[in-house]
Amino acid sequence: MAKTAANGLLAGALARIAQDMDATFDRLLPVPQDPRMRLVDAMRYAAIGGGKRLRPLLLTATAAMYGVDRDAALRAGAALESVHAYSLIHDDLPCMDDDALRHGKPTVHLAFDEATAVLAGDALHVFAFEVLSDPATSGDPFTRIELVACLAHAAGHKGMAGGQMMDMAAETADFDLPTVTRLQQLKTGALLGAAVEMGAILGHVPAEGRTHLRGYARDIGLAFQIVDDLLDHEGDEAAAGKALRKDAEAGKQTFVSLLGADRARAQARMLVDQAIAQLASHGEEAELLRALARYIVERNH
Amino acid sequence: MAKTAANGLLAGALARIAQDMDATFDRLLPVPQDPRMRLVDAMRYAAIGGGKRLRPLLLTATAAMYGVDRDAALRAGAALESVHAYSLIHDDLPCMDDDALRHGKPTVHLAFDEATAVLAGDALHVFAFEVLSDPATSGDPFTRIELVACLAHAAGHKGMAGGQMMDMAAETADFDLPTVTRLQQLKTGALLGAAVEMGAILGHVPAEGRTHLRGYARDIGLAFQIVDDLLDHEGDEAAAGKALRKDAEAGKQTFVSLLGADRARAQARMLVDQAIAQLASHGEEAELLRALARYIVERNH
Repeated sequence: MAKTAANGLLAGALARIAQDMDATFDRLLPVPQDPRMRLVDAMRYAAIGGGKRLRPLLLTATAAMYGVDRDAALRAGAALESVHAYSLIHDDLPCMDDDALRHGKPTVHLAFDEATAVLAGDALHVFAFEVLSDPATSGDPFTRIELVACLAHAAGHKGMAGGQMMDMAAETADFDLPTVTRLQQLKTGALLGAAVEMGAILGHVPAEGRTHLRGYARDIGLAFQIVDDLLDHEGDEAAAGKALRKDAEAGKQTFVSLLGADRARAQARMLVDQAIAQLASHGEEAELLRALARYIVERNH
Repeated sequence: MAKTAANGLLAGALARIAQDMDATFDRLLPVPQDPRMRLVDAMRYAAIGGGKRLRPLLLTATAAMYGVDRDAALRAGAALESVHAYSLIHDDLPCMDDDALRHGKPTVHLAFDEATAVLAGDALHVFAFEVLSDPATSGDPFTRIELVACLAHAAGHKGMAGGQMMDMAAETADFDLPTVTRLQQLKTGALLGAAVEMGAILGHVPAEGRTHLRGYARDIGLAFQIVDDLLDHEGDEAAAGKALRKDAEAGKQTFVSLLGADRARAQARMLVDQAIAQLASHGEEAELLRALARYIVERNH
């Protein structure tokens, strides 16, 4: 596919997933007319109207390759995005990164208060599993429990939470490249991998048929983080909608500090080529995943 | 059963579940020899060696009534207790109740640090769903997904987290008895209800056959909270292993402030009688659930 057509495909898909995620959260999270209202308001504040929706897009794009019903994929995408949203709320807390801005608006603990932010994160976290375990996500209990197992493993101490712990340790430790790579594969890569894996689970792709998709996800996950480090190093705070250059200030090793900007950029491009090569057995139906891989190195925020 | 025999049955069951829960967490949470170690250490600190294990006891006692394998029930019990443990870590945070003592030892944010406490809570939260979705908990995917759905619903904004939000609102609002009852049914009752329900799910009791168990759980859940309020009002901090009389200081309405101690105590006794009556269709096999109900009003911490 020509580059312009691929860009058009991706732009359309990004706009559509943004709209669909907002609508899905709006439908799944009605505001109760009782003292729990503030909690659900904070959950909606974090979940609706912000973010690139990269994880749900990866999930729905993979699911679409296997003919999965879009509504089912959107529910699974909302579950995955819930976990991502909770992790951002908690990462932004004063005791963690102490961030004031997220997606261009005040972070949840500033827009509400710290206790509500902790609780809204917790409620979004478990909401993911409520959505996945609902028969509306899939009529097949085996598919639902596979989705739960995949997301729980990716989010937990063997995945994202473990990566976050390593990230906290990075402030005082002097991590080498393999350790920073491992850290990022857990902190960011685990959920991106789950996105592709959950799409394949919904498509009833057997575990052994997902190897190339896992490879694709691993490669774009790492490329994504390298580009994040590059943007953090060189990027524009207004475009990013969040504070930048915090890693360097905290004395953390990043791909840029370890490799230098030029080698880091070359490495990200190599990973994206490798990710696209993983999809060689697929035809036109994988074009969105290919465009997404290219977008990851070309984005400016 | 005579009262002494029932007490012996309960004492034995409490000692056994305490030992079994510690062993189950110890087995399911091996410490990784990498920078994630501190996270798993904090999870183990919170999950092992403390608490009455009331929820796992309710779960395993219910499961045993239906002949469920004890190892499976212990795994489900550990998942449920993980959610309880995470909620205590987050409730104890400086921005929430700011507690220094839990189960007679320093709270997680004091023993470790605040960021690690937030993260250890998050990791225990999702660990519950990792354990439940593992085929070792049940070979039947439908049973596993029912367990996930039950626990997710009980823990989320429609359950425990919603109750916690109401509890935070209680400091400034002037709640009446029906609202305090609703608050406690969500904050404490939802997980106690899930304990009984999850035991019944493991026992393949169809949803419509669980009505009396749900009634039992609702009654003892409310009785439990009334007694908690009484102990908070009159109890001994050393026996409780935590700070007391915080609700009154925070200006929150409790069952004791709304009913007075005498009427509250009478109400708790009535609820326990009612809970025991819900088990009328069961024989000797429900004796532990009956003893547990009685223990709830007779305990001194």
